[in-house]
Amino acid sequence: MGRASERRGVLRVDLDASDGGRGRVRRPDSLAVEEPLEIRVGAAGPSRRPPLAVTMRTPGADLDLAIGFLLTEGLIRSADDVFTAQLCSGAETPNTYNVVDVTLAPGVPEPAAEASRHFHTTSACGVCGKESIDAVRTRSLFTVADDPLTVPAERLAELPGRLRAGQRGFDRTGGLHAAGLFTADGELVVLREDVGRHNAVDKVVGWAVRERRLPLAAHVLLVSGRASFELTQKAWMAGVPLLAAVSAPSTLAVDLAAEAGLTLVGFLRGRTMNIYTGPHRVTG
Amino acid sequence: MGRASERRGVLRVDLDASDGGRGRVRRPDSLAVEEPLEIRVGAAGPSRRPPLAVTMRTPGADLDLAIGFLLTEGLIRSADDVFTAQLCSGAETPNTYNVVDVTLAPGVPEPAAEASRHFHTTSACGVCGKESIDAVRTRSLFTVADDPLTVPAERLAELPGRLRAGQRGFDRTGGLHAAGLFTADGELVVLREDVGRHNAVDKVVGWAVRERRLPLAAHVLLVSGRASFELTQKAWMAGVPLLAAVSAPSTLAVDLAAEAGLTLVGFLRGRTMNIYTGPHRVTG
Repeated sequence: MGRASERRGVLRVDLDASDGGRGRVRRPDSLAVEEPLEIRVGAAGPSRRPPLAVTMRTPGADLDLAIGFLLTEGLIRSADDVFTAQLCSGAETPNTYNVVDVTLAPGVPEPAAEASRHFHTTSACGVCGKESIDAVRTRSLFTVADDPLTVPAERLAELPGRLRAGQRGFDRTGGLHAAGLFTADGELVVLREDVGRHNAVDKVVGWAVRERRLPLAAHVLLVSGRASFELTQKAWMAGVPLLAAVSAPSTLAVDLAAEAGLTLVGFLRGRTMNIYTGPHRVTG
Repeated sequence: MGRASERRGVLRVDLDASDGGRGRVRRPDSLAVEEPLEIRVGAAGPSRRPPLAVTMRTPGADLDLAIGFLLTEGLIRSADDVFTAQLCSGAETPNTYNVVDVTLAPGVPEPAAEASRHFHTTSACGVCGKESIDAVRTRSLFTVADDPLTVPAERLAELPGRLRAGQRGFDRTGGLHAAGLFTADGELVVLREDVGRHNAVDKVVGWAVRERRLPLAAHVLLVSGRASFELTQKAWMAGVPLLAAVSAPSTLAVDLAAEAGLTLVGFLRGRTMNIYTGPHRVTG
């Protein structure tokens, strides 16, 4: 539980080491842990549920990951839709803590029999063009287009440094993505790391669901890597009006942000940034 | 078809621009295209097939992507198992070229009814721990542990520069991953780019399948980002004995490489590298 990094032996090679012996050194190295998390969901009852989804993730904040995932997939609307969520062992011995079992509150529709397949298609592997973009827009509970948030560009430029300063796992491993939620004043609310960038965002959203902070109006979500369609979709589902990425966005991310009325900022590095949609929220 | 990048308008902000007007400039920007590709697979026949998988990818080399994907998933063994593969429009009008339809050769087993779901779980969303790692090992047609490949560390250190020099799409967009296949002499055989790093590898493998070059014995596969479990699995499925990554590997990538007898190199940057498994293939 919570094993974000583990040690492995590594042979470090430095071709420019002057001492021949020091050019090849055996030493321990901290690696980002990658393990499968199975998410099971259903109504209360005695039956063992089949997995709805399996994601390769870094252990830690697994309940948040599962709940954020269900929210961004439109399967729950708030914390009230979850009766219990527990980290359990599944069939594995010894207990690997790689299963989250979610019991839905009475009256919350269970995922349909076809949902698992549909789910895997739409979430982890992406969705199918224009029709699905429309489906996401319909499904999102929150309108972000009217969010009056504005952030000075100067303040926005400070956020990557604050995110980076909080990335303990990246410091150790160099192999973890991060997602950070900030207030309009630039205050870091919560930061999560994961080998999967969508998982890092789901962990942030799941935390916000459990804290009953949705919709995340007037907040900024910053991701350490690129902005894909999927991350933009997750931001919209959580009601975030401004998504910023340290690296490049894709075409579909920009198109979805434009449809949602969400501000999308890319290449937020140093003293420069690209504003792809909703530039009125970034003030001079 | 082959639209790897597209233009979008962007508001470029430079907080240090001395001229107030030049600090906020509207200009076009090239973005990495992200679009869904639906992969359909079945035996010859008149029926329309349901999608086996949908992946968010950058258009281009779509047949290679589909074929590489089927190979690394263990659904085909060679080019002989594919009767036809065509890029078609699906039900969409106008034709979006976002569907690849693969007709299997006579006698090749069709994916089972449950395969789609299983597939989405094991490939795109990851697999479930030790049992599935064993399953991959059983399924792989190729043994890489005995591959006698050796590469001088000096030569290995040259490869990222060669990969980078070939990344036309990254030059334009800053948002594309790359995978490159090299000979033991350091010669670039094929390079592919994609918004998804697993897609870039599948495009390389699919090209090799169609060129009938499998197993990729005595070859080096270099990826521009991190090395995950999934990428290590794909390298093994294609018979590659040495996987190198510019950035960090995960624990599960290292563990799988150790089981396969595959050499895994990470943080291959400048004049240094970390060798996680199979160090005998990297000579002093």
